[in-house]
Amino acid sequence: MAICQIKLKPNIIKVHNSAELTDAISKANAGDNIVMANGIWKDVQIKFYGKGTKEQPIILKAETTGKVTIEGVSNLQLGGDYLEVMNLHFKNGHTPTGSVIQFKINDETIANYSKVTNCVIEEFTQPNREVSDHWVELWGKHNQLDHCNIIGKSNFGPTVRVFLTGNKNINNHHQIIFNHFGPRPRKGGPHGETIQIGDSETSMTPSYTNVSNNYFEHCNGEVEVISNKSNFNEYRNNIFFESEGSLVLRHGNYCTIDGNVFIGNDSSEFIGGIRVINTGHWITNNYFYNLKGKEFRSALAVMNGIPKSPLNRYMQVTDVVVANNTFIDCVSPFQFSVGVNIDKKTVLPASEIRSERPERMVVANNMVYNHKEDNYPIVAYDKVDGVTFKKNVFNNVNKSNISNDGIITRDFQVKKLSEYLYVPTKNQEDAYKGFDFEKISTDIFGADRTKQNSIGAITIPVIDPTLINKKLYGTNWFSTNSPHYNAKIIQVATNKELLSQLEKSHSGDILSLKSGIYEITSALVINKHITIISVNSKNKAQLQFKGEKAVFEMHPKGVLNLENVILKGDKTQEAFTTLAKNMSQAYDLFIKNTEISDFKSVIKSYKASFADTISINNCVIKNCLNGIELNKETDDGGDYNAEFVYIKNSKFDNIQSTVLDYYRGGYDESTIGGNLVLQNNTFTNCGTDDKSGILIHNQGIVNVDFSNNTFKNNPVRDIAILWGEKGQKPVNNTISNSGQIRIEESLKQKLMY
Amino acid sequence: MAICQIKLKPNIIKVHNSAELTDAISKANAGDNIVMANGIWKDVQIKFYGKGTKEQPIILKAETTGKVTIEGVSNLQLGGDYLEVMNLHFKNGHTPTGSVIQFKINDETIANYSKVTNCVIEEFTQPNREVSDHWVELWGKHNQLDHCNIIGKSNFGPTVRVFLTGNKNINNHHQIIFNHFGPRPRKGGPHGETIQIGDSETSMTPSYTNVSNNYFEHCNGEVEVISNKSNFNEYRNNIFFESEGSLVLRHGNYCTIDGNVFIGNDSSEFIGGIRVINTGHWITNNYFYNLKGKEFRSALAVMNGIPKSPLNRYMQVTDVVVANNTFIDCVSPFQFSVGVNIDKKTVLPASEIRSERPERMVVANNMVYNHKEDNYPIVAYDKVDGVTFKKNVFNNVNKSNISNDGIITRDFQVKKLSEYLYVPTKNQEDAYKGFDFEKISTDIFGADRTKQNSIGAITIPVIDPTLINKKLYGTNWFSTNSPHYNAKIIQVATNKELLSQLEKSHSGDILSLKSGIYEITSALVINKHITIISVNSKNKAQLQFKGEKAVFEMHPKGVLNLENVILKGDKTQEAFTTLAKNMSQAYDLFIKNTEISDFKSVIKSYKASFADTISINNCVIKNCLNGIELNKETDDGGDYNAEFVYIKNSKFDNIQSTVLDYYRGGYDESTIGGNLVLQNNTFTNCGTDDKSGILIHNQGIVNVDFSNNTFKNNPVRDIAILWGEKGQKPVNNTISNSGQIRIEESLKQKLMY
Repeated sequence: MAICQIKLKPNIIKVHNSAELTDAISKANAGDNIVMANGIWKDVQIKFYGKGTKEQPIILKAETTGKVTIEGVSNLQLGGDYLEVMNLHFKNGHTPTGSVIQFKINDETIANYSKVTNCVIEEFTQPNREVSDHWVELWGKHNQLDHCNIIGKSNFGPTVRVFLTGNKNINNHHQIIFNHFGPRPRKGGPHGETIQIGDSETSMTPSYTNVSNNYFEHCNGEVEVISNKSNFNEYRNNIFFESEGSLVLRHGNYCTIDGNVFIGNDSSEFIGGIRVINTGHWITNNYFYNLKGKEFRSALAVMNGIPKSPLNRYMQVTDVVVANNTFIDCVSPFQFSVGVNIDKKTVLPASEIRSERPERMVVANNMVYNHKEDNYPIVAYDKVDGVTFKKNVFNNVNKSNISNDGIITRDFQVKKLSEYLYVPTKNQEDAYKGFDFEKISTDIFGADRTKQNSIGAITIPVIDPTLINKKLYGTNWFSTNSPHYNAKIIQVATNKELLSQLEKSHSGDILSLKSGIYEITSALVINKHITIISVNSKNKAQLQFKGEKAVFEMHPKGVLNLENVILKGDKTQEAFTTLAKNMSQAYDLFIKNTEISDFKSVIKSYKASFADTISINNCVIKNCLNGIELNKETDDGGDYNAEFVYIKNSKFDNIQSTVLDYYRGGYDESTIGGNLVLQNNTFTNCGTDDKSGILIHNQGIVNVDFSNNTFKNNPVRDIAILWGEKGQKPVNNTISNSGQIRIEESLKQKLMY
Repeated sequence: MAICQIKLKPNIIKVHNSAELTDAISKANAGDNIVMANGIWKDVQIKFYGKGTKEQPIILKAETTGKVTIEGVSNLQLGGDYLEVMNLHFKNGHTPTGSVIQFKINDETIANYSKVTNCVIEEFTQPNREVSDHWVELWGKHNQLDHCNIIGKSNFGPTVRVFLTGNKNINNHHQIIFNHFGPRPRKGGPHGETIQIGDSETSMTPSYTNVSNNYFEHCNGEVEVISNKSNFNEYRNNIFFESEGSLVLRHGNYCTIDGNVFIGNDSSEFIGGIRVINTGHWITNNYFYNLKGKEFRSALAVMNGIPKSPLNRYMQVTDVVVANNTFIDCVSPFQFSVGVNIDKKTVLPASEIRSERPERMVVANNMVYNHKEDNYPIVAYDKVDGVTFKKNVFNNVNKSNISNDGIITRDFQVKKLSEYLYVPTKNQEDAYKGFDFEKISTDIFGADRTKQNSIGAITIPVIDPTLINKKLYGTNWFSTNSPHYNAKIIQVATNKELLSQLEKSHSGDILSLKSGIYEITSALVINKHITIISVNSKNKAQLQFKGEKAVFEMHPKGVLNLENVILKGDKTQEAFTTLAKNMSQAYDLFIKNTEISDFKSVIKSYKASFADTISINNCVIKNCLNGIELNKETDDGGDYNAEFVYIKNSKFDNIQSTVLDYYRGGYDESTIGGNLVLQNNTFTNCGTDDKSGILIHNQGIVNVDFSNNTFKNNPVRDIAILWGEKGQKPVNNTISNSGQIRIEESLKQKLMY
């Protein structure tokens, strides 16, 4: 069919500054292209409004793709019809309002049929991580976010948020497609979703948002990479790559999750798949590879609900269909009645007790293959009496409690077709035909199932076996790969050299310290990745601190490897601290073979600071008033000051007050919840001035390894109180004259909702 | 356009009994017509299944319309596609299962694209009112109930119930159209809805049921004539005629209520309109006439919600549009924050406190006209801060608390065009144009609003001013009007005559008793409408009861007018009682100018019995052990034994124990809740043997008038305890040596949910 089109020449208006831009927008008509001149646009708050048409949108774009950066205190709001924003780069700044890009100007001027495309938002994060914002807020109807790169949000608030509040914003049919999301770093607290669609108060609202063909890479903000909180949304053909969380059907119903890929790795138990709550979802044609998560983070987590649940808690799972999915090398991929907590009745109110099992659920035609024998494809935390299993095939023997004739051990093979992709060598054609299953008309690659069908997500032959084609996602111009840098080793012999070389050094460099005493009078600022090491491990350099605050001040993104060094203070300062404000991004601290003595505190953190990792290995720490203080998140909103804390093979002597205070408050299930590894250490004469009666505080920390330590002559009542419910227990510790290690099964936590 | 149709001749199979019917069904093919022979089909349970097609349905029908009655213990189930049931009459029986007509046979065999049409279900009610059933259960998708008469359900359970449980039953698009519902008598307890669509557990489920062009006449079962509990349903052009309840959007969202007519009358405060809960409803073009209800039963009741409400309680009202409705002679038609109960925190849990006001609600272009001045068009039980008012016109001065420029007093006129119908003499054309208001494209009569527009439901000119055309509704063959009967007056002079004439008399007749003593040895059964009266009011006939049980035994549908009579017992029997079982329908008792003495109880009711009205006027009641016992509904499920209890101008002397025990238990808001009028009576020497310390028990009864009584020498602590919250208070009573009348503001009631 031939269509005759009249191509209209756009009216191009080039603008060079904010005033010209404002003027151009105020005069814009359908078909106008407003072109922002190349360069840095600093502190601009753009309100882009107008009435374009489908054929003649109003376009706002960069003169040259990627050469227009929006920096400083800036943002963009759209309001009107058929507006398009293209090719902009937000970096080096943050928004002064609640959002960087917002599809409305105010409640009267909302965007419809508008697009933001081929743009980048790069680390445009709030200086204070506790300040909440969203980077993209979708309002109105029929808007689109496509081909964008969205990277490095470390503050409070979901990255992309779809709002449904008000009739102008329902049945929105928004398109979130072909974007590259990530990394979103660990946040150490809730509200770190990458996409959230609606909220519990609009969880009855029809949304019809389409999230398809996006690449979620290391989106580690919290347990919900995507938080679905409305109805009739579709999630298709997205890649979730090593993201520490799941696609969570938190509120809302009747969603479609089809053709998505979830990739884990051998080392992480935090990378999840799909978590199911509520009613009527169809989960089909998804491919899960190498996922090791369990419970909330299992490949397929089906939760228990709360009877007559409050609006913002957990509705029962009903009428959900899970069909034609493939699980390769996942550990116990099916987990049912996740979150059951009937035994927590003593510490939780009835309105928190998840006792309602899934009902009228159908699990059919799924394929599970494990190269390494796994006999527990299913884990059930409660009775599984509301699930119909049909034609699910496993290549191993099923020894789980759940065994019925819908779960079949079958001798079938898979072969590797491309990276991460394993497909059956033969179609398993005997699929179950359930109610409405004819809707599952294609496989994950779009092959017609009426022509070639198999149990699982994939039918053979596979025409194009590429599972992840990174070129599809994000802009056509931006790359997250930083150029390669060859790290230098810089020899340092004096105080002065240490200071100047630290300042001059490039991220990744190594400062190699000659033996001797370095008198330090002001804090060494760590705002990049730096290694400080003594040349001679037998004759360690000694940093004698004569200054006021701390030897090392960790700044956002600072990473310090400190090795073979002696740190000495005069009992009035800290060995390590953070900025007191504006710790916008995480820091890391690795301390090895180092002696630390005579400080007020070894590590003092501040509120809103966050360490991804603190590692102390083979160190001697002595004669300090306090040890490690990671206890400044006292709002009890689920936040905490460090994700991984490793203390190994070290000696603590005469730490007068608390040795370690690592605190997470508030009843929250959104995060990893902290990790403490305390192994092979010796504690002597500590806690002499302690008033709490507890030597090691780990209140609310979820993952604790407490083993092979020796406690001697520490005059405390309790060495530590471990959280039984989370599987914490002391292993092989030696205790003399030091109180005891107690276990409390359930922890009373402050409800946050 | 000419369409060429091939008319297929149906294959007619006539059947004469259950076996032939079963056989015919088992062999039926698309296009078959199974014809049931005229006559009574007793104790038949029909399973009608098969696969018809759109062009060739399988039809089950009566040989002659209305000449096939299905009686006894019978029911009908449908399963399959394109099945049609026509012209049957269910009467004189009840179902042995949970439903009379059910659109499924079992969970595997569900009806789709099927119809029940031109049928009658007449008083096919359970013998025991406490046994729950539904008369029509809709399952599956695309089914239809049309042109039926559905009359006289008096037992527990909604008359028509749409089920959404399970994916086979969602997005159902059922059609409930052109039916005549009613009367549904008062039930004296909850679960007396006429139509219920879904339940709280499927309140997030898309239904798309269409309830249109039905006539609801005296549907008085409970406060919800229709209980909407699912999403996207439509209610259009229905007539609600003097029905004591409302169309209630109890759960579920995004419903359309358009073009309906609500007719009240001068005498009832129980006839309601529309009650609003939840999100996104559009209420447009409705016509409300002469409604006097308030709070739950107001013309438009907008409720407060419970914060983070449990699934089965009250969600907040948000994003609701109420536009272009007309209210003629309604008392305070707009009531906001109905159900607010913040002051009941002491007797209710937090999860019952309705403190959330409506939000983002738009009330616009409504017309309110009152012939009699009413200065309070709006009643607000809480602040009204979430409602936008635009262009609502009133013909009276607005003195309510809510006054803003969206509420306009305007001098306009209406004229009467037909019964109940008042229309403006001039279109009020200055309507507000809100978001999406172009959807309100026609008026209540279908007139195009782009051609003639007005504030209110009606635009002029009105082409056909018929508001209610009864011919549209129900079957084309059944009439609820019973043939006229000229009541006879039957003279009675002896025991024998009394017994035989009572038995022989026709409902409506009057037994006129000659003066003298009638020795009665067995109960007089009242199973019809009968009047018993002494000829000479100065010389009353005396019924001396020598039997065992009671002088009068009230049966279902029994109505007794007793006047100018003396009843005497020997203190071991009752004066009036009910059947102990199978009180399937209500009874009425009117006692006037009568002396009652020497009974064990004056009135003894049984569990599951229900009196619509008990009236005692100008009587003398003395020397009895007990008075009036309406206290047998002790399950605390909201049920009670009588709706209206009038005790006036009477003397009670020496009633040894409780004079009156009128009981309603359980926290329930579904019913009128009982009515007690206690006026102008004298109580002396009563309660001498009472152990409760209370003379008159009215626990849980909602409406109480307690005035102008005299209490003298009754040795009790309390005469009565009144319920302050419901506005109960004693008025002008005279008390001496008889305890006190207490008021308790809030009543602690057992939660039922």
